[in-house]
Amino acid sequence: MGVLYNQVADQLQGLIQEGVYRDGDRLPGVRVLSRQFGVSISTVLQAHQTLEGRGYLDARERSGYFVRLPAPDAPEPVMQKHRAKPVPVTAREMTLDLCADEQKRMVPLATAIPHPDYLPLRQIQQSTLWAARRGLETLDYAFPGKESFRRQIAQRMATLGVPIAPDDVLATNGAQEAIILALRAVTQPGDIVAVETPSFPGILQALEVVGLQVIEIPTHPSDGLSLEGLQLALDKWPIKACVVVTNHSNPMGARMPDDRKQQLVSMLAAANVPLIEDDIYGDLYHSGERPRPAKAFDRTDNVIYCSSFSKTISAGLRLGWMVPGRHMANARQHKYFVNLATSSIPQLAVAHFLEQGSYDRYLRTARQNYREATERMRAAITRAFPEGTAVSRPQGGFVLWVQLPDGFSGTQVYQRARAEQINVAPGLMFSTTNKYDNCLRLNCAHPWTERIEQAVARLGALAGEARTG
Amino acid sequence: MGVLYNQVADQLQGLIQEGVYRDGDRLPGVRVLSRQFGVSISTVLQAHQTLEGRGYLDARERSGYFVRLPAPDAPEPVMQKHRAKPVPVTAREMTLDLCADEQKRMVPLATAIPHPDYLPLRQIQQSTLWAARRGLETLDYAFPGKESFRRQIAQRMATLGVPIAPDDVLATNGAQEAIILALRAVTQPGDIVAVETPSFPGILQALEVVGLQVIEIPTHPSDGLSLEGLQLALDKWPIKACVVVTNHSNPMGARMPDDRKQQLVSMLAAANVPLIEDDIYGDLYHSGERPRPAKAFDRTDNVIYCSSFSKTISAGLRLGWMVPGRHMANARQHKYFVNLATSSIPQLAVAHFLEQGSYDRYLRTARQNYREATERMRAAITRAFPEGTAVSRPQGGFVLWVQLPDGFSGTQVYQRARAEQINVAPGLMFSTTNKYDNCLRLNCAHPWTERIEQAVARLGALAGEARTG
Repeated sequence: MGVLYNQVADQLQGLIQEGVYRDGDRLPGVRVLSRQFGVSISTVLQAHQTLEGRGYLDARERSGYFVRLPAPDAPEPVMQKHRAKPVPVTAREMTLDLCADEQKRMVPLATAIPHPDYLPLRQIQQSTLWAARRGLETLDYAFPGKESFRRQIAQRMATLGVPIAPDDVLATNGAQEAIILALRAVTQPGDIVAVETPSFPGILQALEVVGLQVIEIPTHPSDGLSLEGLQLALDKWPIKACVVVTNHSNPMGARMPDDRKQQLVSMLAAANVPLIEDDIYGDLYHSGERPRPAKAFDRTDNVIYCSSFSKTISAGLRLGWMVPGRHMANARQHKYFVNLATSSIPQLAVAHFLEQGSYDRYLRTARQNYREATERMRAAITRAFPEGTAVSRPQGGFVLWVQLPDGFSGTQVYQRARAEQINVAPGLMFSTTNKYDNCLRLNCAHPWTERIEQAVARLGALAGEARTG
Repeated sequence: MGVLYNQVADQLQGLIQEGVYRDGDRLPGVRVLSRQFGVSISTVLQAHQTLEGRGYLDARERSGYFVRLPAPDAPEPVMQKHRAKPVPVTAREMTLDLCADEQKRMVPLATAIPHPDYLPLRQIQQSTLWAARRGLETLDYAFPGKESFRRQIAQRMATLGVPIAPDDVLATNGAQEAIILALRAVTQPGDIVAVETPSFPGILQALEVVGLQVIEIPTHPSDGLSLEGLQLALDKWPIKACVVVTNHSNPMGARMPDDRKQQLVSMLAAANVPLIEDDIYGDLYHSGERPRPAKAFDRTDNVIYCSSFSKTISAGLRLGWMVPGRHMANARQHKYFVNLATSSIPQLAVAHFLEQGSYDRYLRTARQNYREATERMRAAITRAFPEGTAVSRPQGGFVLWVQLPDGFSGTQVYQRARAEQINVAPGLMFSTTNKYDNCLRLNCAHPWTERIEQAVARLGALAGEARTG
């Protein structure tokens, strides 16, 4: 079915690109298209959502789908094919520079942290006040997690196709800690772990903390991790775990379609290699349905699910969780060893926030905000950056991956931009092997201001001057 | 001077033991004793406090010092002399059993967590409510720590003889995390680290997390780490760090006198081995003045100070801090890598709690409570346990170290007690090398109830039957 809706989407996209449907046209209704393509209505709806994600359709409530030509649009980045081999991960300190105090005055396009305007400040404050009044409950060790928090997580996981009990949940200090606990549970120092490339720097840092080697698997800009690349690596190296951000990966923004998630899960199960899934951006899909995690396709208890509220409710809570499955005893022990438990008050507050339905109400707004913010930033980049620049087309989250044309250096842009008080993340951060010198990652989760507009224009100008050699 | 007040204390103790001063007698005033011994008034006061710690004096406000004969009193445990060699630390999972859910119904004499009655519940709730209303401040990343929290810590550290700036403080998830960050900053996996023995299991677990070898240095029941033992180990092994709980160590309850702290600091500075100081019980001295940390004697920036509020305000906050000195950049990086930052709300709440003076007010009560609770438990153990049992005489904190006579097994007591729903910590937990089979650690931080009294009596009876071989 995954293949089918993609075929329909491709054909519709072809019709749009050939001018059969023009900018602003209303698409025929779903029943019409269902007959036209000989597919079910749900397949048509999935095709619509796919095209919406690609930027070719606009859903207007109660009016249907309208064509939107992303006219002078930048292409998606090209998936890089590398002959990779495992390397130890060391000295990934660059992220620290991006978060240093002195950067707080810069135009904040570097770190993937939402602007406070996008956070549910009032509602989480209500829940925190509620939690503060819990008395004793706020003072005792919450190991392996507050019952109320774990119950709410179990309820949410069930809606994602992962039916678990509260006892299957381990509360952590963010997803970063969850990933480290998962790695500790299934690897020994020196082992080889497969990750996407470009990869979230936190994952590379997690590998460094545990003393692991990394092998980087190419990521397709919209379909995610290359399964072919992964299979080659599995055949060649004794890989002990695979870490994947399955939904709206950071920095690429890729979302693996369900069929590829399914393949990923069975491929790793066959190879007896645990999948560590980071689903931190899953709730921030821009349209359509909440994408499933790979864990929903896990029939052999081979997927360790990790997530957090850092990208949704707030990063300051430091509240995440994991579903370690058969590795629970091991993960619990490591959690206890590294810091005993996760702070009680944030758990009580978030449990209340979820229970009240505030989270789901907030997500509806947040998803719309991030979608708009990402599109606006994408358009601004397309206008400002040199011809030949490619920009990712994420279907969720709030970061963009910008690939400058060959011969241009993103690292130079990063350095010069810092001198002008503009903070962006250089591509180099997203790999162990200096692969992405021509890339940048931009955080879009900011209300659009003249300051930001000018910063993006300036970045484009700097990029135009940043020729290497 | 340290030697001098000890001499005065020893002489006074001799006079008491010889019956010159009898139970309930009021000691001569400090001026009289100052003339009598030819020492300063402050030396007399220090001697008084020492004797108070040893259980021979009672300070009554505005009335002076009264003799108290700890009549049929158990002796202090004997410092064990071991020929130690470094061993890797592995599989220290026993602590987990002590905290498991099913233990919550047992008589809670195992974990070193205070009963909620002893915690400043109402005041910390006020401060948490205050913090919850801070709005934005509660949502952003607090890396490397909330300014207000770090400022309060800097103020407290100054009163301990450690003048530092707020920027010298790194907020952590408890002291456990601080110790791990300190170890990561100064060691490589496989390195040898010296610790006290018996040692706090959390420190052994921290060594395991970082992949280190341990060499155990004997601890004197009241003077703390054997400096002679440490020197021998430094001469023989390439030790890369030394972790010491300088004030009211857990489990032994030892407090290093100032002169020995000074020697420890200079000995390690000379050997170029960093001291990682865990001062988590420092604020819980039973009488006299707040003992100084070793860090107060550090002239060469060779001491990394670690502490937390887990034993005072509450363990559920998961809030600690460290003063890493020249290792700050390294510690910050590791903190960022493992979980980015410490949750904001607990930091804001504790900063407010400290700023309001609530902490100091609370400590006055807590110290009295823990002193009384420890004495009561000590007396009950002396009554109930077999003749020849030794019990530590801590001058702070709330745990007791019980050494059964040769030929008796604490491990057996632990196992049989669990079957009767009494939870104690077996001596085995406090070493890597099965040294303390004849020992137990008891948590005294509980209001004295018939249930607890009966549990101690029962433990004593079980001990009497727990003959080995």
